Amino acid sequence: MSQSGTSASGPTRTEHLATWSANLQFKDIPQDVVQKTKDFFLDWLGCAIAGRHHPAVAAIAQFAKQMGPSNGKSEIIDGSLNFSTSPAFASLVNGASSHVVEQDDLHNRSIMHPATVIYPAALAVAQEVGATGEEFIAACVVGYEVGCRVGEYLGKSHYERFHSTATGGVIGVAAATAHLLKLDATKTLSAIGTAGTQAAGLWQFLLDATHSKQVHTGKACFDGIFAAYTARDGLLGPRDILEGPRAMGIALVPGDTKPEAIDQNLGSDWAIVSSSFKWHASCRHTHPSVDALLSLMKKNDVHFDDIDSIVTRTYQAALNVLGLSGSGETVHQSKFSMGFVLAIAAKKGQAMITDFTEDDLTDSSLREFQKRVSMELDEEIDSKFPEKWQGTVIVTCKSGEKFTESVEFAKGDPELPLTKDEIERKARALATYGGFTDTARVNQLIERSWNLERETNLNGFTF
Amino acid sequence: MSQSGTSASGPTRTEHLATWSANLQFKDIPQDVVQKTKDFFLDWLGCAIAGRHHPAVAAIAQFAKQMGPSNGKSEIIDGSLNFSTSPAFASLVNGASSHVVEQDDLHNRSIMHPATVIYPAALAVAQEVGATGEEFIAACVVGYEVGCRVGEYLGKSHYERFHSTATGGVIGVAAATAHLLKLDATKTLSAIGTAGTQAAGLWQFLLDATHSKQVHTGKACFDGIFAAYTARDGLLGPRDILEGPRAMGIALVPGDTKPEAIDQNLGSDWAIVSSSFKWHASCRHTHPSVDALLSLMKKNDVHFDDIDSIVTRTYQAALNVLGLSGSGETVHQSKFSMGFVLAIAAKKGQAMITDFTEDDLTDSSLREFQKRVSMELDEEIDSKFPEKWQGTVIVTCKSGEKFTESVEFAKGDPELPLTKDEIERKARALATYGGFTDTARVNQLIERSWNLERETNLNGFTF
Repeated sequence: MSQSGTSASGPTRTEHLATWSANLQFKDIPQDVVQKTKDFFLDWLGCAIAGRHHPAVAAIAQFAKQMGPSNGKSEIIDGSLNFSTSPAFASLVNGASSHVVEQDDLHNRSIMHPATVIYPAALAVAQEVGATGEEFIAACVVGYEVGCRVGEYLGKSHYERFHSTATGGVIGVAAATAHLLKLDATKTLSAIGTAGTQAAGLWQFLLDATHSKQVHTGKACFDGIFAAYTARDGLLGPRDILEGPRAMGIALVPGDTKPEAIDQNLGSDWAIVSSSFKWHASCRHTHPSVDALLSLMKKNDVHFDDIDSIVTRTYQAALNVLGLSGSGETVHQSKFSMGFVLAIAAKKGQAMITDFTEDDLTDSSLREFQKRVSMELDEEIDSKFPEKWQGTVIVTCKSGEKFTESVEFAKGDPELPLTKDEIERKARALATYGGFTDTARVNQLIERSWNLERETNLNGFTF
Repeated sequence: MSQSGTSASGPTRTEHLATWSANLQFKDIPQDVVQKTKDFFLDWLGCAIAGRHHPAVAAIAQFAKQMGPSNGKSEIIDGSLNFSTSPAFASLVNGASSHVVEQDDLHNRSIMHPATVIYPAALAVAQEVGATGEEFIAACVVGYEVGCRVGEYLGKSHYERFHSTATGGVIGVAAATAHLLKLDATKTLSAIGTAGTQAAGLWQFLLDATHSKQVHTGKACFDGIFAAYTARDGLLGPRDILEGPRAMGIALVPGDTKPEAIDQNLGSDWAIVSSSFKWHASCRHTHPSVDALLSLMKKNDVHFDDIDSIVTRTYQAALNVLGLSGSGETVHQSKFSMGFVLAIAAKKGQAMITDFTEDDLTDSSLREFQKRVSMELDEEIDSKFPEKWQGTVIVTCKSGEKFTESVEFAKGDPELPLTKDEIERKARALATYGGFTDTARVNQLIERSWNLERETNLNGFTF
């Protein structure tokens, strides 16, 4: 583990990252990076409306109403809540609602969901400062880059204990906000430091299906915005919050960190380009197995009722996370049960957002199927994780036949991205799931998303 | 390390603590506990006004103004800021300002400063809900109890990496707020869970004299209030955030936890009664050595100029914290340098708030003295820490004479508490240091503090 501190021997990696981040301009961003930023923005917008009815979101919105200002320039995506507020509170609510339905994106190497923290924060701040579409895109690119690099630095062993989306995310939010506030490198470094010393988010909620997941993303937005605004106003943050002797690497990482991830290939290896869409509506750790199972069933003409048992071979982090949710007593928790997710996929031929319902929780055919699914650690697959999220399923049929299928990439991975049409289809489905039926309005928001760099302001992205 | 989880074998320790905390009423609280609550309240009030000019406080107040409501029932202690706001923001500012001057109290066994998180949060919430003095006192007693018990559970090895005042404090704040909101045991448990999953605060700021210390206390207030209000409104927090298999004990404690601290002797061993006043204005880890040195100099008629060198024998945690601040380049950082603090004490005969000045930082006699002070680990002293904060100093004089002095208790410890007169004297000095000169007003606030249980509301505690 590195202990570089803020030595006299030249800038630390964190300083390098902060300087790069403060200096990035829209014109320096390649076109494919801009396109991905728009793809994931639309993808995120759908998630934010889809999650609006969750009780955690309602409680957090109530907190925003009671503790925040009764007016402000920053909008709650769920227009039915009918209030706008300050950026810290708007992002608190939108960050919570976009992490409800397990459909937001993933940056594989850092094991983080960047969209659900970066977009709500950047959007809310952009609305307050009156940023253009170009400025918004540049800030989001910075947020992805800084957040995901921190997540990758913290690594697998950190992820075993902490919800990296929050702990890396808060730093990405600080950097994105700092960019919109046009802070210089020194103040951006302060923002990163103050964000890092607030980094938090434990997995304990998975054990009893409680609501911390949305707390983590909403608060990562709030706390990162706090870090950047206070840095602007003179609050000094620790200068080496990643690698310093009392910093995140030492305190929050039980195993090895990956220091080079902090600043290698800045400006050539873009985090947002190596992010993945989620196609299925379940925990991303189930996706390689779902893809392998659906492919196997199709290839070999195997049907739900034909299957006697399934062994999924996966990586350790999947076993750790999926092993915590028991049998999946709520719809949300059921998306973290490998057995239940494969049951849904096998029975319905897909595992989209509309495929997980309250009724399914008491469907005995699904529950019995679920019991016949087991997970095993695959050393080879584990050695490639998190660079690659691979999976193998071995299906034994009631007939005695046995089939095996492996996937190298999951649908939505950078190597197998969603098409423009699929992104739109998913966004429409998410809006419908969120109970929003104004098709013309959805079309309008889709159109604005595709033309984001030409927008003169970011107002009005509400359903 | 315990992994009790939420088993079917009866309530967990955390459930026991939450239930006790939800059920405690003012009439159940012994008179000496009530008295200590008033003592520490006044002590805290002085700290809050004394720290008002710190740049971190200014930046955080600016954040509160920009992100919070422009009106509200909760007051900023520094009346010159001239705004009241929602409880979350008022406590954010007051929590920051009361942890600036290193004069706030200490709970020895948990290595926490409870006042700076519990009082600002409880005061702000009490003002919003219109609580009486009795209700406020009960909530503060609950906050101390829950926060300090969590800090003691997390223990010494946690404190090596985390600012326990924040990580235990946020849970104490949640419990105190839950009490003022009259939440039942189940919702109090949710508040505790949501607080714990936000627990954060690293020591990295000590290395470069940056401002996280005030961020940690202010945010512990904000985050704990968030936890309790959202729990009231239906947000579920993890039920075993302390001892569960993915909870704080596992994720935030590299060494041993002390599970029995969570709930043993509830209602008989009161955290606030075992808290200590800080008499000297330096890091509490220097106090045993300051006391020993002052005693030794008096007993043996030794003066500043007589001293050639000093060896202080102390516990490991002191070495860890005090070893991070280098030579003490700022007034705040100088209070974390054992050598500098002993130099001040030796030269001025005391180390009160007015004894640490900008001029002292460039006083060559102090700087040279500082270099002749060294710290050594004392195994016996270390074995008793943090139950006892002891210290030994060995002074070698220029004459060749050598003296040794040990203290079992520091001035302000529960065994050597401040007198009523000393508490008032300290509060007046703190107000003066904060630039507040209206003596009549200070007298009025002191008088109200001594009669807190008879107050019908908590409004107007501003300077």
